[in-house]
Amino acid sequence: MARVVVDVMLKPEILDPQGQAVANALPRLGVAGVEAVRIGKRIEIDFTGEADLDKAQEIADKLLANPVIEDFTIRVEESEA
Amino acid sequence: MARVVVDVMLKPEILDPQGQAVANALPRLGVAGVEAVRIGKRIEIDFTGEADLDKAQEIADKLLANPVIEDFTIRVEESEA
Repeated sequence: MARVVVDVMLKPEILDPQGQAVANALPRLGVAGVEAVRIGKRIEIDFTGEADLDKAQEIADKLLANPVIEDFTIRVEESEA
Repeated sequence: MARVVVDVMLKPEILDPQGQAVANALPRLGVAGVEAVRIGKRIEIDFTGEADLDKAQEIADKLLANPVIEDFTIRVEESEA
């Protein structure tokens, strides 16, 4: 089994209210020194055979990311087995 | 600036309907060979100074993950600059 990981994040110029809410909560926790928090998606695609980056790219393009507001990166995750 | 990345995924025994929906859509796209898709969160925490894994752990524990249904991993992301 091979795993491909797709990370989908909002483009830098798009506001991220969810991340902003976490960042705003940090002083109440007593945590200082954090400049920004951004929250996106991590998608794990498990292939039955070899990892197929082209297929993963197609899946990400069509199903996982909204290209108007999101960027994504794709990588093969090394198996721990 | 140093960045810590927190990956939050549902525990393996917890059903992931969102990932299942993507997996079910793949045959319609003509994509075969995918065994499973799981969707979680990726959180980027930018520190003003040094990356602080202890702080990131505290943030993840208290704000980012629900320990009943989610696992998380924390790592420092190497800067591309």
